[in-house]
Amino acid sequence: MSAIFALAMSTLAAQQAVQSWDAKFRAIPDAGNIGEYIKRMSARPHHLGSPYDKDNAEWILAKFEQWGWDARIETFDALFPTPKERVVEMIAPAPFTLKLEEPVVSVDPTSGQKTEQLPSFNAYSVDGDVTGPIVYVNYGRPQDYEDLERRGISVRGAIVIARYGNSWRGIKPKVAAEHGAVGCLIYSDPMDDGYFNDDIFPEGPTRNGTGVQRGSVMDMPTYPGDPLTPNVGATADAKRLDIKDVATLTKIPVLPISYTDAQPLLAALKGPVVPESWRGSLPITYHFGPGPTRVHMKVSFNWNRAPIYDVIARMQGSTYPDEWVIRGNHHDAWVNGAQDPGSGMSAVLEEARALGELARQGWRPKRTVIYAAWDGEEQGLLGSTEWVEAHDKDLREHAVAYLNSDGTGRGFFNPSGSHALENLVNDVARDVEDPETKLTVWKRQQARRIANGTREEKNDARTRADLRIAALGSGSDYSSFLQHAGVPSLDLRFGGFDSSDGIYHSVYDDYYYYTKFLDTDFAYGRALAQVAGSTIIRLADADVLPFEYADQADTVQTYVKELQALLKTQQDDMRERNREIDEGVFAAINDPRRPLQVPKKETVAPALNFAPLENAAEALTQAAARYRKAADTARPKLASNSAAVRAINAKLLQAERQLTDDAGLPKRPWYRHMLYAPGFYTGYAVKTMPGVREAIEQKEYAAAETEIVRVAKALEREAALLDSISSSLQP
Amino acid sequence: MSAIFALAMSTLAAQQAVQSWDAKFRAIPDAGNIGEYIKRMSARPHHLGSPYDKDNAEWILAKFEQWGWDARIETFDALFPTPKERVVEMIAPAPFTLKLEEPVVSVDPTSGQKTEQLPSFNAYSVDGDVTGPIVYVNYGRPQDYEDLERRGISVRGAIVIARYGNSWRGIKPKVAAEHGAVGCLIYSDPMDDGYFNDDIFPEGPTRNGTGVQRGSVMDMPTYPGDPLTPNVGATADAKRLDIKDVATLTKIPVLPISYTDAQPLLAALKGPVVPESWRGSLPITYHFGPGPTRVHMKVSFNWNRAPIYDVIARMQGSTYPDEWVIRGNHHDAWVNGAQDPGSGMSAVLEEARALGELARQGWRPKRTVIYAAWDGEEQGLLGSTEWVEAHDKDLREHAVAYLNSDGTGRGFFNPSGSHALENLVNDVARDVEDPETKLTVWKRQQARRIANGTREEKNDARTRADLRIAALGSGSDYSSFLQHAGVPSLDLRFGGFDSSDGIYHSVYDDYYYYTKFLDTDFAYGRALAQVAGSTIIRLADADVLPFEYADQADTVQTYVKELQALLKTQQDDMRERNREIDEGVFAAINDPRRPLQVPKKETVAPALNFAPLENAAEALTQAAARYRKAADTARPKLASNSAAVRAINAKLLQAERQLTDDAGLPKRPWYRHMLYAPGFYTGYAVKTMPGVREAIEQKEYAAAETEIVRVAKALEREAALLDSISSSLQP
Repeated sequence: MSAIFALAMSTLAAQQAVQSWDAKFRAIPDAGNIGEYIKRMSARPHHLGSPYDKDNAEWILAKFEQWGWDARIETFDALFPTPKERVVEMIAPAPFTLKLEEPVVSVDPTSGQKTEQLPSFNAYSVDGDVTGPIVYVNYGRPQDYEDLERRGISVRGAIVIARYGNSWRGIKPKVAAEHGAVGCLIYSDPMDDGYFNDDIFPEGPTRNGTGVQRGSVMDMPTYPGDPLTPNVGATADAKRLDIKDVATLTKIPVLPISYTDAQPLLAALKGPVVPESWRGSLPITYHFGPGPTRVHMKVSFNWNRAPIYDVIARMQGSTYPDEWVIRGNHHDAWVNGAQDPGSGMSAVLEEARALGELARQGWRPKRTVIYAAWDGEEQGLLGSTEWVEAHDKDLREHAVAYLNSDGTGRGFFNPSGSHALENLVNDVARDVEDPETKLTVWKRQQARRIANGTREEKNDARTRADLRIAALGSGSDYSSFLQHAGVPSLDLRFGGFDSSDGIYHSVYDDYYYYTKFLDTDFAYGRALAQVAGSTIIRLADADVLPFEYADQADTVQTYVKELQALLKTQQDDMRERNREIDEGVFAAINDPRRPLQVPKKETVAPALNFAPLENAAEALTQAAARYRKAADTARPKLASNSAAVRAINAKLLQAERQLTDDAGLPKRPWYRHMLYAPGFYTGYAVKTMPGVREAIEQKEYAAAETEIVRVAKALEREAALLDSISSSLQP
Repeated sequence: MSAIFALAMSTLAAQQAVQSWDAKFRAIPDAGNIGEYIKRMSARPHHLGSPYDKDNAEWILAKFEQWGWDARIETFDALFPTPKERVVEMIAPAPFTLKLEEPVVSVDPTSGQKTEQLPSFNAYSVDGDVTGPIVYVNYGRPQDYEDLERRGISVRGAIVIARYGNSWRGIKPKVAAEHGAVGCLIYSDPMDDGYFNDDIFPEGPTRNGTGVQRGSVMDMPTYPGDPLTPNVGATADAKRLDIKDVATLTKIPVLPISYTDAQPLLAALKGPVVPESWRGSLPITYHFGPGPTRVHMKVSFNWNRAPIYDVIARMQGSTYPDEWVIRGNHHDAWVNGAQDPGSGMSAVLEEARALGELARQGWRPKRTVIYAAWDGEEQGLLGSTEWVEAHDKDLREHAVAYLNSDGTGRGFFNPSGSHALENLVNDVARDVEDPETKLTVWKRQQARRIANGTREEKNDARTRADLRIAALGSGSDYSSFLQHAGVPSLDLRFGGFDSSDGIYHSVYDDYYYYTKFLDTDFAYGRALAQVAGSTIIRLADADVLPFEYADQADTVQTYVKELQALLKTQQDDMRERNREIDEGVFAAINDPRRPLQVPKKETVAPALNFAPLENAAEALTQAAARYRKAADTARPKLASNSAAVRAINAKLLQAERQLTDDAGLPKRPWYRHMLYAPGFYTGYAVKTMPGVREAIEQKEYAAAETEIVRVAKALEREAALLDSISSSLQP
């Protein structure tokens, strides 16, 4: 078709053209290629700063170039302490030196690459040499310390031992230090990550007795990225903090250990027996301590900086080149990383190859498409964060959306992200085939919601046009895009059937394991490439940006109701507890052989003025409906690349940005999104409307009132923006 | 006071006199005595048929006589097979012979009385010599077999291994045999009964690796008592069934084992990994099987009869001698039995001593009081059942109430039983002091309900005059009284703090354990004696029997609502499942690596006519209210021992009997109570309105309609009886 006609064709006809390109695209990704990428990238350990990390970056760069992309490596330079000394020894009641070592598994060919492996450790632990009694703190969450307090057990001066799971690992030493602990060991309990769940590696997929979960423990909920350069890119000439002024290092030394190493420590503990929800699957009785287990723990690190190699590939937009659609996955691993990040990174690469192939067939994206392979994700989203901070202004001006992936699996397509993209990702999911059932991935996810949902969720899954997507917390590279720069983001994954917990962040996350226990024929890697690539094409080629605010407003309404319910529950619980204290209930039910302290009465949470939030949510709902109606009416008359379309998109591009506030969240200004943030005490798990929600949870009611107004203002800004588009569309 | 005046005094004044006697009574029980009784009775193994069982019976007899009771031993003669051969050996994948032996624990002086101990076994298992693959069946309940069926796993020809708990042990081989298994092993998983819960014996109170739970596996939900003599007392000349015609023996050989013996069998199993709710605390991955574990199991028994020594003590009533108030606890144990039955039996003895003492101080019960120490409870309630069957006609004529106890513990007073006695037992609980808190035992139980209850239960505990009591299923000697003879019954226990699971039915349930881990100072034994003795005195001395039907009617109304909700839930679930089958949900969510079969569609449960039950419950509610009003109005005018009082009591005595039906429950006519029975597939746990409830559960809807009418008729009979009393009381 002629260029003139193309320019003149309606946005509706253009949409059909998009669909035909993305159908063509979906035929290209090849599972065999994905397997080859994983094999190549996971052939050797490739953590940040390692030779093979750089080698992979250069290989990825070469691949992008081979596929016709304009690619380069952007380099940053970030703090990355690596272990110098690691000693943990039980000194009472009996001597025992922990191995702190993952042994070679003979059937697993890469598990023995000892010279290139980093030993097991937690990144951004401070140096320390401490001795103290052990206290078992369950998952090490704030509520676990409430349980300790009811029993009059203090961790002051103690080394806590926490089990992995139910919070991001960095939360565990943070909360331990808040309570006065001097050290923190984190172990993988076989109930959460071991034989309780399935046979252990190499017979089965779960963590064996000596497997250790490495991982970062920086205070990511304060800010992610290079600890030395908050808010700015860690370029060579960036102004850096002194290490002593860094807020995101731990306050106490931390080390991860295996359950074989943990068992003697836990078995020797005395003190009261822990409650049922605290008990794991080791064949012992779990006690709180403190002691008689005493431990000496010494860790020290090389406090060096490491180079970050972010591979950035561009395909210039033909029509709206200043509007950027961004896709990324990290390429660095803790060790070999076949699953994390290989499973996601390989899909990204296969998309890049397929888009290159599509371009050879004549496709030109209307918008600029940027593909990224991030480095240093494992340490704390270093590569993506430094890139976002370095390009913050550009991103706020140009970024349409960011699509992330990371480790992915087999089963159900379960996207999460910005709710303005909910409709788009649902539409794509309706067009992609599930490898196992040959249903669409949308249909299979719907079936799962029907099967496992509450009555309300079943009904939702059956009757709502779009399946709801979850909000994003943290734990992968979308965080800076969404929560710092206000770029609408999606995180795309398959999963539900095979847990990869068993080798997560261990030397056994490798090609041998992957091809034995996970997406063994790479069919789901291909499906991920199809889903993500199609989403990219639709974002790149739709004339009017395919954002849907009715879904978003609907979700915002549910958040307002949740917050009201949260406060109500808190009030009811406080009232009830106070009443029970008055009635003497706690004293009456006390077992003198296992005494619990009577909790203190507290002032019942006040009523809060939710009206600003209710009004703003309603305004957004109305504005979203008006926008949808106006856009649908206008669409047949809107010519591609017309001034009208450009004007609409210029505003739509800024819609999610209205939800950010430059002052950021209370106590953590790096986080600027008013709807989504990782919880200050959860780490991975999202807190929606975090300023309000966490203020209520922390019982800071004056702050909650202030935050209600700030969130309301953000929603009003977005509603006003949408209304201004709707007005401009009216004849 | 003169006899003339006593006869003429009002029932109200008489009540005050009762209260003063029972206050005097409560000062008498002595904790030290209780400890001595436990020590004496548990000094040697004393199972049914053993020398020390007889010795204890004779000692108890002597005690009753010493305390002024008219006592004797009633003897029956019941089938009691004891082990001749017990062999279990794993023959694949590796040979392993199970120990089947509880070792001597050196600190525990009676654990080594080997010559008098019965080895670990399950009574009323048939003989058998079987070999087959092992299948793990979780708790061995019907729903567990549904889980197996979804995975296409059959137990036909296999030996099942079930864990103890969550159903009465006799259910496990029964359901296994229904599904075609050829043998059944039952083991104690450390999650339910071992180190998961607390330190193991002798360091702590939970079951150690070699501890075994003995116990009966007769089909007690069909009928308890001597298998050879259903419905009649097993006297010397009773007509006996041939063993081959007995319905209550198991269909397949059964043996209980320790978790040390079970672990190699379970660890070697393959097949799919079991779902989370099936997993225990052994340090292994639990698989279903079948195989490769294969086991050879051989058991045979000495099919002999054993003498039952029921010790029966009477104190003749002064005023209403033909009205009997009965109290009992068993004296036989599986081995030494300090907790079971010593803790309860010793309280009964101390009550008997205290009542004797009270008689010496001048008290004479108005009604005849009968104290019983039953034999052969452990085999299947033999002693109490044979006595009830032997005296069925007399009991139906004379029995006012039966108060049972058995193993008891420390903590909360938690009575259960006939709801006509709910008010009485609440009143007593308001007068007895809790040893630990010095609150009344009523107040402490109320606090517990407030602390642990749902919103509705909290409100109930705070506002309802009486704390609700639970209905009785089975598992102790009340069963025949209540469910066969229709005698209003209570089961009285303290508990909630210390689990005695760890030594339940093992050689370690002895004085050493008891005084280290349970009611170590016997204070709760004393409290039980106070509660039970006071209840006995009030039942014996109240002129108008202290039954309260408003409580009962209130509870009956809740049962009707529960049944309606049960049916509604069943209909909703069936409709939803059928819909999901039609939608293809099960196929869509299937994991091809762990396939589940799609369930079959089924006809949705029909609506049932609950009107007869609703009307009857309403009639009972009205009649109960009328009776209460009439009785309260009449009370000041009713003279003790007057013809009017005698006429009222004659009817009240028959009130609970109206709830029985001579035709009994469907498929198990021995059970005649229309409100209470042990579940056919639960064994211990009660099914209220069992005919209706189990018909709905088993999807036998025509039977449910029939049973609704039968239950309604029973309630109507009772309502009519109460109305006839109310009419007679009107001026």
